[in-house]
Amino acid sequence: MISELDILGSFRHLVERNNINFVVVGSGDDAAVIKSQKKDLVHSMDISKEGTHFPHNSKAEDIAYRSIATALSDLAAMGACPSFITVGLTSNKTNIKWYKDFTKGLEIIIDEYDIKLVGGDITFGDLNICINVFGYPHKKPLLRSNAKLNDLIYITGILGKGRQGLTDWRNNKKSKYHKDFFRPKVRFDIAKYISNFASSCIDISDGLIKDLGAICKSSQVGAILRYEDIPITNDINDLSYGDDYELCFTCGIEHEEMLKNKGFKPIGKIIKGSDVKLMKGNENIGFKNTGWDSFD
Amino acid sequence: MISELDILGSFRHLVERNNINFVVVGSGDDAAVIKSQKKDLVHSMDISKEGTHFPHNSKAEDIAYRSIATALSDLAAMGACPSFITVGLTSNKTNIKWYKDFTKGLEIIIDEYDIKLVGGDITFGDLNICINVFGYPHKKPLLRSNAKLNDLIYITGILGKGRQGLTDWRNNKKSKYHKDFFRPKVRFDIAKYISNFASSCIDISDGLIKDLGAICKSSQVGAILRYEDIPITNDINDLSYGDDYELCFTCGIEHEEMLKNKGFKPIGKIIKGSDVKLMKGNENIGFKNTGWDSFD
Repeated sequence: MISELDILGSFRHLVERNNINFVVVGSGDDAAVIKSQKKDLVHSMDISKEGTHFPHNSKAEDIAYRSIATALSDLAAMGACPSFITVGLTSNKTNIKWYKDFTKGLEIIIDEYDIKLVGGDITFGDLNICINVFGYPHKKPLLRSNAKLNDLIYITGILGKGRQGLTDWRNNKKSKYHKDFFRPKVRFDIAKYISNFASSCIDISDGLIKDLGAICKSSQVGAILRYEDIPITNDINDLSYGDDYELCFTCGIEHEEMLKNKGFKPIGKIIKGSDVKLMKGNENIGFKNTGWDSFD
Repeated sequence: MISELDILGSFRHLVERNNINFVVVGSGDDAAVIKSQKKDLVHSMDISKEGTHFPHNSKAEDIAYRSIATALSDLAAMGACPSFITVGLTSNKTNIKWYKDFTKGLEIIIDEYDIKLVGGDITFGDLNICINVFGYPHKKPLLRSNAKLNDLIYITGILGKGRQGLTDWRNNKKSKYHKDFFRPKVRFDIAKYISNFASSCIDISDGLIKDLGAICKSSQVGAILRYEDIPITNDINDLSYGDDYELCFTCGIEHEEMLKNKGFKPIGKIIKGSDVKLMKGNENIGFKNTGWDSFD
């Protein structure tokens, strides 16, 4: 039987390697002390549960990576730069290799985005990962509530890749899309760029239609999308499946030319009203919401 | 069937009531934005799981209170003042009353210690509460690693009351001790006072012997305790059961008179070595470690 100490041992080096200029007191005391950055702190929390947020038998390395990436995505959506995280792990795994693999996934993602692991806790039970992420705004935070009439709507990548990856994985099919589900890229690079001028932003975790709908609701506006202009993997369901972790943002038309030069093409615009209209040619084709809530 | 929205609804007012001067962006966006306090941030995380950290059938109000109190106790042990918390709730309860009661417990404790709830997440599954607590040091942080030879050892209250409360609760016995297990007081008042002069500090969650042992290990010293001077509820096992959440601290003998005037009496002192010696009269009686790891 492995002990909590064995498990904590596999994590601890990630906490201990923190620079003293950032983590004044680290692992081994009652609490960690994080040096003041004299900036507002942006925070989000995500719980990822086996069977709900990722399928049973996912690899430990992927579980760690994905749980943290999906939480970080909320920071990107706020136009924030990531700084540190905490990891609350409840696990019923009984072999130390699983924890070593989990730690490897954790290390890969914190190295990729230059993030500090400042603390955590471990307990025994159904697999459940509670991630807290912290960062600092590049400029002022990118809110959902600031989209304006006639703003253009953009997304940062192709929709449906994550879901395709999951489908292929469940069908034991070799696929270039597995990584889109298990190792989604967090759009910090684009978040930093757009934080200078975007009027609103959200990450596409629940599907474009629903997430853009959240911007509309918060901003008290409507939106119209042109189906032909939306980059997708398969079909119309890619607009509502979710698990994309691309950003959806809005900005004034004065930025269109600049964004075009960066390769961005608008997929629609903000209009009066409260609905998200989906146009194919001149027809409002609506959308089918076929998102699923559970994997098993 | 209740939805996540119903549940979040029961929490949200606690996030929404936050003063804009503290939480710049609150509930309803991708992340919360917490105004810079320009001070180092003290952080700790605790996961509380049904059957491991509190018994099955505990009241929802008590579960919320206790999960947060035990996490806050680590801040007190660092000589820190509490500021804000996040709550990650995984629950399999299916009636809305449970969530309302949980929220009530949450509200009671954040009001008691004047703490802000800045964010959280909810998912369905075995009951599991992941609490992150944040605060700011009064002075410099109280570490475990700074106890010095000949320092006196103090505790802030009677040991064994929490465990007696749990025993009585399990035996369906009316008891003045229930609250000591389910609603432990966090010693922020004393933490503030001793932060001026204590050399080391820890909270007694795992039992005095083990927790003082952690101070000894970190400070590379030994300790000698006088059994007759330790305030207990029942017997010698109160020194190793845990669940007390009193503080154990050390300080130089020059503070003895001042502490005596405040009603504090030392229970032992720091010596050379690496062990915690327990003396009854002139005899080293050692201790029995009968702490339990699970309640069910």
